[in-house]
Amino acid sequence: MIGIFDSGFGGLTVLRHVRTALPTHDVVYFGDSGRTPYGGRDVHTILDFSEQATERLFEEGCRVVVVACHTVSCVALRHLQQRYAGPGSDKRVLGVTIPAVEAAMEVTQGHIGLLATAATVRSNTYAAELAKLGQVRLSARAAPVLPPIVEEGWEGSVTAREAVRAYLADLSGIDTLVLGCTHFPLLRGVIEEVVAPGVHVLDPGPFVAARLVDWLRRHPDFDPGEGEGALRVLCSGDPTSFAAHGARFLGEALPVVHHVAEVDGRLAHRDPGDAPVGQVVRDRSRR
Amino acid sequence: MIGIFDSGFGGLTVLRHVRTALPTHDVVYFGDSGRTPYGGRDVHTILDFSEQATERLFEEGCRVVVVACHTVSCVALRHLQQRYAGPGSDKRVLGVTIPAVEAAMEVTQGHIGLLATAATVRSNTYAAELAKLGQVRLSARAAPVLPPIVEEGWEGSVTAREAVRAYLADLSGIDTLVLGCTHFPLLRGVIEEVVAPGVHVLDPGPFVAARLVDWLRRHPDFDPGEGEGALRVLCSGDPTSFAAHGARFLGEALPVVHHVAEVDGRLAHRDPGDAPVGQVVRDRSRR
Repeated sequence: MIGIFDSGFGGLTVLRHVRTALPTHDVVYFGDSGRTPYGGRDVHTILDFSEQATERLFEEGCRVVVVACHTVSCVALRHLQQRYAGPGSDKRVLGVTIPAVEAAMEVTQGHIGLLATAATVRSNTYAAELAKLGQVRLSARAAPVLPPIVEEGWEGSVTAREAVRAYLADLSGIDTLVLGCTHFPLLRGVIEEVVAPGVHVLDPGPFVAARLVDWLRRHPDFDPGEGEGALRVLCSGDPTSFAAHGARFLGEALPVVHHVAEVDGRLAHRDPGDAPVGQVVRDRSRR
Repeated sequence: MIGIFDSGFGGLTVLRHVRTALPTHDVVYFGDSGRTPYGGRDVHTILDFSEQATERLFEEGCRVVVVACHTVSCVALRHLQQRYAGPGSDKRVLGVTIPAVEAAMEVTQGHIGLLATAATVRSNTYAAELAKLGQVRLSARAAPVLPPIVEEGWEGSVTAREAVRAYLADLSGIDTLVLGCTHFPLLRGVIEEVVAPGVHVLDPGPFVAARLVDWLRRHPDFDPGEGEGALRVLCSGDPTSFAAHGARFLGEALPVVHHVAEVDGRLAHRDPGDAPVGQVVRDRSRR
């Protein structure tokens, strides 16, 4: 099976393209919706969460894990690759940044805009990867108001339009806009209404899926091959809410969503009814 | 010294009232701006961060710590009190929920609205504390879009007004609105424009400060007494940005902001220039 993870719902937009490109492959998706967003978090927290997500997907039977989250891909991908996919390992971890950067380079006339999380912008990874491919200008803007707008389901609202307008005002002169957070393809409609005419709005999702297909073709040892097109979904937040909201991101109804939660530094399957309510007093011996 | 902490800037609105009430007391403020917001996080992460913040303030010389953050106060206060302020301890930890609930009970005619974070609403702590004081109805709405709007400095924008309007539409019939997140007093202007006429908008900040004054009077052993009105500020995010944004919350310019960061599960003073950029590969032995 192929594993895909994201800090929450957003990666379902990537999963959607992977399902279209590889309709008979079996896929496991993990959305860390109980701990989203990652974009404002410190680096070590992002590394911890990314390790837990990757290990959970390996335990589910995946040998290839796609990091759909741009924040994790910009900050932690190399760490995950060195830790789990070094020489001799039968596992691989792939990201979204390089497909996004390559797709942007193909269409830009020289000035790329990036809307992303604060951690993605701060990492400077987009600029570093673009610089390897040629001389282009990058204008990047962290857009922390947009993910919660999408999580609320407010994509068509005045709130969404005004927030997008404010962010795009800081990216004047761009010819290409990279949607550098998996939440943002849901805002594509309002972004295209507001963005300056002629700007190419780029959702990296289809390019990530195309690159995965190509990579599996070139690495047949890692291709799990055709299955039944089964989809298994795990999340760390409320599974009912995940299934309800997730359909907007995936473009189809979700199967039963399984709940996992952090227990002693690992993500374990757990009944969501066990989640604590009210004041929580933790045993002194724990952590 | 008195310690105050919050998940970010917001608690500076509480600090503002504490400084007015106790102008000659010395205060240390910690804003966990590098890891904000807490409101969408799982309970154990909130407990971890709260422990780290409390221990940092004890190390700064505080014996009384005020948890300004409603999320922490609703979820982790009892844990912090049992862990650090049990029988025989010379430390105390105070929260904001009970002052907020008492203030709301004094003005309501029977139907209280609460705007807060998802974790605060999910905890049910407001409902539990209100039920101890009498029979009132509580309508609570998580408002995850509002904290990032305030962090962007967009309080006067159309985005802010439309988001507030959408949230208040889910709280119809209330007579009192508790601003149950320390970011929301910054939105008081736009909230009062949009809220139904006659609804009492309640910022718990002044009540928290008044309760602290009263508590210190009744517990003179814990009162550090008059100092020089000194203010020391720590944050876990970017100190320059914290100082620039924080002035809006505090209502006066901030002193030099010191940077702390998580190192091996503790918050230590650290040069912000040491923060990693780009792909971060962590030593396998760490954690």
